[in-house]
Amino acid sequence: MLRPEHCLRLLPAATPAFVGASAPFSCPLPGGGAIRLRHPRARTPRLRGEPSSVMRASAGPDAVASAPEMPQREVVRALAEQAVARLGPRLLPSAVPDDVAEFRNGAGNAVGSLDVRRGAPGSSIDFMLQSSLHCKVPNGAIDITSILIFLNCMTDAPHFLLELIQGSPTSIVVVLDLLPRKDLAFHPDYLQKYYENSRMDEQRAKIDELPQVRPYRSPSLFVRCACSPTAVMVSIDCGQGGEGTLEEIVRGQLAMVAKEVLQFWLDCCADSTTKMDNTERDFLLKRDQIVRSKSIEVDLTANLPMMFDPDVSSRVISEIRKAFGVQEA
Amino acid sequence: MLRPEHCLRLLPAATPAFVGASAPFSCPLPGGGAIRLRHPRARTPRLRGEPSSVMRASAGPDAVASAPEMPQREVVRALAEQAVARLGPRLLPSAVPDDVAEFRNGAGNAVGSLDVRRGAPGSSIDFMLQSSLHCKVPNGAIDITSILIFLNCMTDAPHFLLELIQGSPTSIVVVLDLLPRKDLAFHPDYLQKYYENSRMDEQRAKIDELPQVRPYRSPSLFVRCACSPTAVMVSIDCGQGGEGTLEEIVRGQLAMVAKEVLQFWLDCCADSTTKMDNTERDFLLKRDQIVRSKSIEVDLTANLPMMFDPDVSSRVISEIRKAFGVQEA
Repeated sequence: MLRPEHCLRLLPAATPAFVGASAPFSCPLPGGGAIRLRHPRARTPRLRGEPSSVMRASAGPDAVASAPEMPQREVVRALAEQAVARLGPRLLPSAVPDDVAEFRNGAGNAVGSLDVRRGAPGSSIDFMLQSSLHCKVPNGAIDITSILIFLNCMTDAPHFLLELIQGSPTSIVVVLDLLPRKDLAFHPDYLQKYYENSRMDEQRAKIDELPQVRPYRSPSLFVRCACSPTAVMVSIDCGQGGEGTLEEIVRGQLAMVAKEVLQFWLDCCADSTTKMDNTERDFLLKRDQIVRSKSIEVDLTANLPMMFDPDVSSRVISEIRKAFGVQEA
Repeated sequence: MLRPEHCLRLLPAATPAFVGASAPFSCPLPGGGAIRLRHPRARTPRLRGEPSSVMRASAGPDAVASAPEMPQREVVRALAEQAVARLGPRLLPSAVPDDVAEFRNGAGNAVGSLDVRRGAPGSSIDFMLQSSLHCKVPNGAIDITSILIFLNCMTDAPHFLLELIQGSPTSIVVVLDLLPRKDLAFHPDYLQKYYENSRMDEQRAKIDELPQVRPYRSPSLFVRCACSPTAVMVSIDCGQGGEGTLEEIVRGQLAMVAKEVLQFWLDCCADSTTKMDNTERDFLLKRDQIVRSKSIEVDLTANLPMMFDPDVSSRVISEIRKAFGVQEA
């Protein structure tokens, strides 16, 4: 069975450390997917399979025309719609340049997309980031789709995060979490409010109890300890011939759980404001900055250049840094 | 297969929430085991099977004479010897009263032991706590053995912790960790020093890769987030007829890994001192206090009285509070 880390080893110059250090979760890995719901400029979905002008301009003879439609993208798209429907004007229009909104490597075997919408002034939303990657490798393809909705320092409520990393048609790695912004061992009240009272662990268990599911342990210790104790952090492996089963799980239980987690987040986190004195707010800000910087450091700056030409990867990283609000080290 | 939580459900008045909330890890659950290596007073091991005067005095006609010798107790005993040999005079003699050093419930079906040795003045050791529980239940017995070595605020290095919870002759729950004293997501340097550079994850993997091993997910979210990302937190289940296999694993791979983790801790944590300004030290102290109080709250005060008579459990809890340096809420 091909696992994401195996696939990624096949990428030019990719090291075995790539996935896990990079993919789940802290990797807001930009990536392929011509099927993007919200094109940053047009604001209307492009038709399936219709390549963008950026793609047409840069694609070589062996190029991937577009990322294939697949359940992981449907799930993320549905979540983005759910969030946009609820957040409405609290999300500003996308401000990502065209050549970051969609990009590809020189060989044309990898296409990526990134969309970032900042929160409107006065809202607790910092940004919503969607990214997608489709990369052909000798034995198949790897597909990574992510949605992150981060909050600013008007609240200490957790961020929302989903990453789906698929290295074969029969297996997928899932990281779904309300990403904590406080030290949970030090703040039992915070743990209780967002993780115990919300019964998040029951959502996690719905995925965990599937027979095809195994825990996914990121090789990055940082990723492991940045996530909450109710994070869905699993590998779903349906075995040979299990393509249909995997699709059913992704469209079924996974989509349902992700939707319910997002619904809780929209109801209890997205609009929240937290009373904090200056010291508390400074502390929260500092923690946010460290977590964000560390995410980018262990992932993108080390790994994106392995998959995309330097000018492309630096453009993309620069936009992600801008969204994350962190400067180059 | 009988699992610890099933066994504990059979205890008088025990709720399903007992194990998991209480047992791993935060439960320095005092408990059975007449085979105690270091009797707090005598300082010489009692002969196997020889009941103490406390036991003889209180045992009823159906009473458990002593906790059976078993591999989990051998492992903890060997670790205690390893620690004592290294720490030497940095550990004071035990100061636990006789009726806490060994105790039992009125029905005599449960015996417990607790030993606490404080660190000598000027050392970084706060205390070493060993505890053991043996409790007969209708379908067998439950055995819990723990060793915790906690540091004081002269250092911010992690504590050492091992808990073994056995609900049947063929299965055991293991929690082995260098318990972090800082928010690891906020302190990547601390994560690197104690968990990455120490290659703790390789130790964890040695246990995780055994075919009989499954991840153990404590029902207590607090327990999950208080542990490090390299904690061994597993259930080892050898299935019907697997008594011998379990014994081999406990005496073999588990003993070896626990010994190596303790060795690293003795080499790099036990003697360490950390330069901190007053604010940092106050913060560390506060975090320590919250984690310790929360441990006792979710475990002992709620659960010990279900297994032992009120006077016994309050005596034992009081000694553990004293060791932990936390007052009754």
